[in-house]
Amino acid sequence: MLDDLARIGRDPSTNGYVRDAWSAADLELREWFRGEAGRLGLDLREDRNGNLWAWWGDPSREPGVVTGSHLDSVRQGGAFDGPLGVVSAFAALDLLRRRGVRPARPLGVACFTDEEGARFGVPCVGSRLLTGALAPDRALGLTDDAGDTLADVLTRAGRRPGDLGKDDETLGMVGTFVELHVEQGRGLAATGSPVGVASAIWPHGRWRFDFRGRADHAGTTRLEDRDDPMLPFARMVLAAREAAVRHGVVATVGRARISPGNTNAVPGLVSAWLDARGAAETQVRALVAELAEAAGVEAAEESWTPVVDFEAGLRDRLAAVAGRALAGPEAAPGEARALAGSDKAPGEARELASPAAAPGDARDRVRAEVAPVPVLPTGAGHDAGILAAAGVPTAMLFVRNPTGVSHSPEEHADPADCETGVAVLASVLEDLCR
Amino acid sequence: MLDDLARIGRDPSTNGYVRDAWSAADLELREWFRGEAGRLGLDLREDRNGNLWAWWGDPSREPGVVTGSHLDSVRQGGAFDGPLGVVSAFAALDLLRRRGVRPARPLGVACFTDEEGARFGVPCVGSRLLTGALAPDRALGLTDDAGDTLADVLTRAGRRPGDLGKDDETLGMVGTFVELHVEQGRGLAATGSPVGVASAIWPHGRWRFDFRGRADHAGTTRLEDRDDPMLPFARMVLAAREAAVRHGVVATVGRARISPGNTNAVPGLVSAWLDARGAAETQVRALVAELAEAAGVEAAEESWTPVVDFEAGLRDRLAAVAGRALAGPEAAPGEARALAGSDKAPGEARELASPAAAPGDARDRVRAEVAPVPVLPTGAGHDAGILAAAGVPTAMLFVRNPTGVSHSPEEHADPADCETGVAVLASVLEDLCR
Repeated sequence: MLDDLARIGRDPSTNGYVRDAWSAADLELREWFRGEAGRLGLDLREDRNGNLWAWWGDPSREPGVVTGSHLDSVRQGGAFDGPLGVVSAFAALDLLRRRGVRPARPLGVACFTDEEGARFGVPCVGSRLLTGALAPDRALGLTDDAGDTLADVLTRAGRRPGDLGKDDETLGMVGTFVELHVEQGRGLAATGSPVGVASAIWPHGRWRFDFRGRADHAGTTRLEDRDDPMLPFARMVLAAREAAVRHGVVATVGRARISPGNTNAVPGLVSAWLDARGAAETQVRALVAELAEAAGVEAAEESWTPVVDFEAGLRDRLAAVAGRALAGPEAAPGEARALAGSDKAPGEARELASPAAAPGDARDRVRAEVAPVPVLPTGAGHDAGILAAAGVPTAMLFVRNPTGVSHSPEEHADPADCETGVAVLASVLEDLCR
Repeated sequence: MLDDLARIGRDPSTNGYVRDAWSAADLELREWFRGEAGRLGLDLREDRNGNLWAWWGDPSREPGVVTGSHLDSVRQGGAFDGPLGVVSAFAALDLLRRRGVRPARPLGVACFTDEEGARFGVPCVGSRLLTGALAPDRALGLTDDAGDTLADVLTRAGRRPGDLGKDDETLGMVGTFVELHVEQGRGLAATGSPVGVASAIWPHGRWRFDFRGRADHAGTTRLEDRDDPMLPFARMVLAAREAAVRHGVVATVGRARISPGNTNAVPGLVSAWLDARGAAETQVRALVAELAEAAGVEAAEESWTPVVDFEAGLRDRLAAVAGRALAGPEAAPGEARALAGSDKAPGEARELASPAAAPGDARDRVRAEVAPVPVLPTGAGHDAGILAAAGVPTAMLFVRNPTGVSHSPEEHADPADCETGVAVLASVLEDLCR
């Protein structure tokens, strides 16, 4: 299925993806989602905030188990961040069907709108609106690079901007949410396991620093007469790295707007965005405050997500089920443990991990004997974090990323690991639907 | 006349002008030029490279005296840089008409295309193509931010890209070129004179530095695993300022492209443009080489203009004529000298400088007794520099800029100084046409 999506929004000059929310590429991806839902006979709904839901069973009678992710991308991003979770969700439902599973609870596939915030600057817009973490007025007023507001863009896409906002009816249908995602670091690669479970999402935020100077001619203005905002901007970029090392967090300046941006003019304004995250909120906050004070400018908070500790019970249940799925019915206890935390090649893992062939009694036999998959925190924000913060029992599965590279055309996951991820997700869903 | 242009291409949110070559605003400005030429009964020609010429007399019989400048703007530029020279040219011709002058040589007004290079990155495209300093193939392949080439843009504007190139026929009509321009520094403000004459244009160039790194996730990539091109870019910005001070030149990074430019991603590539100028080429070259070596990247030269020393004879002739025009017929020698280099208010200067009322004999009387206007170099590139380099006898007049601010909405010249500039230009043209 990932192959079906491979051409949508791909920049042929870089092989990176540009899939801004509500762009032509995004609309095509949404159509693909509708098509897959139809193919599997699922009941498709688009909620008031543009999130898509495909249901097996009726969630209005009883809250269901939902899995999924997002289809939009950072600019020049990779093929896996987001789509892997949606594709794996459909594939897992398909697998359960083929295994003859009849889930006792409704099972849903979700696609959240504008997770990356590439177009309007605020991430997780769809899930934040759904849970009420983002006010509709603020969302509708966000502007893209072309100066269009989200309200303009939604109207053009045939949606009603007035419908946006907290949607308890839709949220009430989500009894449990499990998001599968490509790992965006090398934590799993270090453990040797193709799949892991998230323990927590680091607190993280985005801040805008506006460095104001005076636009001037680059050839005729003496150095001593200049008020060039590029200089404090450059100092902030370097200070951010130095402070991140010192505070033990990560800090990134990946976006800046230089105005007016003429080669032959001193800029009048440089706006720079700082992304900062870490295990502890105090350290992240200290870094931002320090940079703002050193630069003598305000750090305008554009988004902030507190730490998300995923529910320990659900997390441990997933890790155990995933461990058993990886071990497989025929695996001797010793082999299973080795698989969950060793350097077995992905090919071997896939073979062992095929739960489609697993008779129930064999699974029961090894239940208590295999090791759970690794549990690890992440510095990346996800819709799962937004739902968890809203009180929905939520968990995340990660699929190994051999290089850890993400938000880049080089982002990669081994096809065998992706298949293992689907098998594990299917087992997890089956377990949660019991 | 400047008021007629005030609304064209103005960004209402900043009052800055955006007048990219061949944009809707530029096309409207070109129409305005045609209208003015028609109003004054001048013969309008557009040459093969898109430059506009309005002739009083027939330059195909004898090379003429040409004045003018450009109408395009840097992005978020001011109202004077370019338009003041074109408007003053028309006003000076009008003044000569009203004074009953019948020039012995053809007199022309020129508007050069794309002087600023705001859209395609290369300045003085019209005059460089005209003189052969820019190869048509290179020009046609230049791309704007939307990815359109100059060839695309010209075709859309109804021009024939194949016509571009060295145009000796048109250039042969230019016997002498005088460009009036708002000063882009505070040299005249320091002398107290409303008008000055250019001695030289500093050698100047533009270089692109490509800092390549590895695009990565901003939340999950450990600091020690990153190859973030923002860091060497920031170091280069700071090093450029430090080296400029040391070498006694000016260096500016006013434009950069951060790719992909996501808040939540380490960029994969930062391209930064360096503008460097100074009195001596060796110092400018030394600075660029030093920065490239420190950064470990190539400094790709996008344009280079060697020093332009305007013809000394023509320059001194202009300075003398301008001094006499400023002194005016009724001025006693003492007053005239004070005016040319003192703190007289612009209002007084205007009154004294009205050559429309000057009978020829009175002018002759003070000819030897008044001081010439200040002669000063500039760090700004101009079409006049391109024509001078091509061997055309060329000079420049500057009109005082009280703050020195240019390439900014705050760019300003006092209306009285602008009127004085017109009067001086008229006297200079009359003198050159004798």
